[in-house]
Amino acid sequence: MAEPVFQRLALIGIGLIGSSVARIARQRGDLAAEVVANARSQATLDRVRELGIADRTEIDPARAVEGADCVMLCAPVGAYAALAEVIAPHLAPGCVLTDVGSTKQSVIRDVGPLVPAGAHFVPGHPLAGTEHSGPDAGFPELFQGRWTLLTPPPGTDADAVERVAELWRRCGSMVDVMEPGHHDRVLAIVSHLPHLIAFTICSTADDLEGESRQQVLRFAASGFRDFTRIAGSDPVMWRDIFLNNREALLEMLARFTEDAQAMARAVRWGDGAYIEQSVERGRKIRRSLIELKQA
Amino acid sequence: MAEPVFQRLALIGIGLIGSSVARIARQRGDLAAEVVANARSQATLDRVRELGIADRTEIDPARAVEGADCVMLCAPVGAYAALAEVIAPHLAPGCVLTDVGSTKQSVIRDVGPLVPAGAHFVPGHPLAGTEHSGPDAGFPELFQGRWTLLTPPPGTDADAVERVAELWRRCGSMVDVMEPGHHDRVLAIVSHLPHLIAFTICSTADDLEGESRQQVLRFAASGFRDFTRIAGSDPVMWRDIFLNNREALLEMLARFTEDAQAMARAVRWGDGAYIEQSVERGRKIRRSLIELKQA
Repeated sequence: MAEPVFQRLALIGIGLIGSSVARIARQRGDLAAEVVANARSQATLDRVRELGIADRTEIDPARAVEGADCVMLCAPVGAYAALAEVIAPHLAPGCVLTDVGSTKQSVIRDVGPLVPAGAHFVPGHPLAGTEHSGPDAGFPELFQGRWTLLTPPPGTDADAVERVAELWRRCGSMVDVMEPGHHDRVLAIVSHLPHLIAFTICSTADDLEGESRQQVLRFAASGFRDFTRIAGSDPVMWRDIFLNNREALLEMLARFTEDAQAMARAVRWGDGAYIEQSVERGRKIRRSLIELKQA
Repeated sequence: MAEPVFQRLALIGIGLIGSSVARIARQRGDLAAEVVANARSQATLDRVRELGIADRTEIDPARAVEGADCVMLCAPVGAYAALAEVIAPHLAPGCVLTDVGSTKQSVIRDVGPLVPAGAHFVPGHPLAGTEHSGPDAGFPELFQGRWTLLTPPPGTDADAVERVAELWRRCGSMVDVMEPGHHDRVLAIVSHLPHLIAFTICSTADDLEGESRQQVLRFAASGFRDFTRIAGSDPVMWRDIFLNNREALLEMLARFTEDAQAMARAVRWGDGAYIEQSVERGRKIRRSLIELKQA
């Protein structure tokens, strides 16, 4: 077995992502010599103990990070500012502070200024997830073959970046480094907008009158169903993502809305050629995904 | 083996749906004693012969329907009017004319007036499909556990309706009868709008500048991918569906757009409660689908 990447890994938040990392650490033994789990509720920590996926649980985030050489924020991004305020004074010298949040500019804005001199801040985002949440939802294969994007601010210690990258590679992930603004723009179109659309169409359907509403559920397999898987996700996590990637999300939604209105106009005025061309583009994208083995 | 439902079944169009029916007819033997396949191109009919899924192929639709006691239109709905004009004079007395189109008011408008006295018109719609098309795309399990909706005009011969229903039940489908306007409204929200959205978001992504566009494909697994499966569908079929369910589709798109704009406003002004509530509704719908085993 290789040397562990870290001596003590503190997971602040132990839901789908945190508990998957904990399970991998347990299974492989070479992510960290010791794993400390922190959560907001004692019930969650009790469950973590039952599951046996951490060496130690700690309800106080300040104590959870003490002596850790890696601290990973795995809470909804809206909780980061308050968490950082609590833990920053307790970070050990040389500690690597990282996270798994879906928005990176907001994390740098909220956490960056609080990181003490001598600690290394390496924001990260594993592009993996399911519609399930909580410590029972995690599993060790979650990151296999998926990307993790790191967005270290300029001047970040290269060794700290490399150690976080190595941790994710040992989780089965491919790792790339990206500029945080670019990350947020790309994620807005590949993840945040699709989720916003999925939540919205569920609401639209839910607002239909009695009989039609029932039939949406009955006949969902005709296409609607494909949109509902991602609509089953955690409300607080998604609220925080939307609010913390506001500009990029609103821009992508505006672009999408323009394109949808152009499609509506083609439908209204019978512009068959426009519709066909649009469907052809969808097909082309689908084919590209299949060629890239992403579908 | 039960008596065949029909003596001679003529399939006008032999793509995903038509060729699946043909395969079931071949496998079971009790849909029809004889299956005649018609297509626009000789190449398609040559392929049907290679596949051995029809007893006879016929390039001329008028000849294909001669002597048939069931004629099933399996072409894109935009082709129905012209097809009906060609075949109507050749329908045998007592023949049951049915179809598989995704829009039912347009089919009744386009085909209904041309049906000769003595023939029975039973519009139908199996809610089944994949993103693939053509005679190679069909498979006998396509309709298993899926709904077929029949929308017979008032006064339609009950025996004709029952025979079409029985054919679909033997295909593994559940059958329901519905008013055509209601069918079109329900399908607009469960199928046509999701497809329009999927095509549109693919176009929006395809319009991004170079690097971001590449990364959409690379990171598609983050949610975008779920939308692309249905975006891989046949352009002409979908063009025809959109143009032939114009009113209901535009109304559902307008409702969806209002809801998306309300969400955008919540994101812009930081209304976290509104966003959370919307995500909760998506979750609820998802849970209902899981309970109904439709997910």
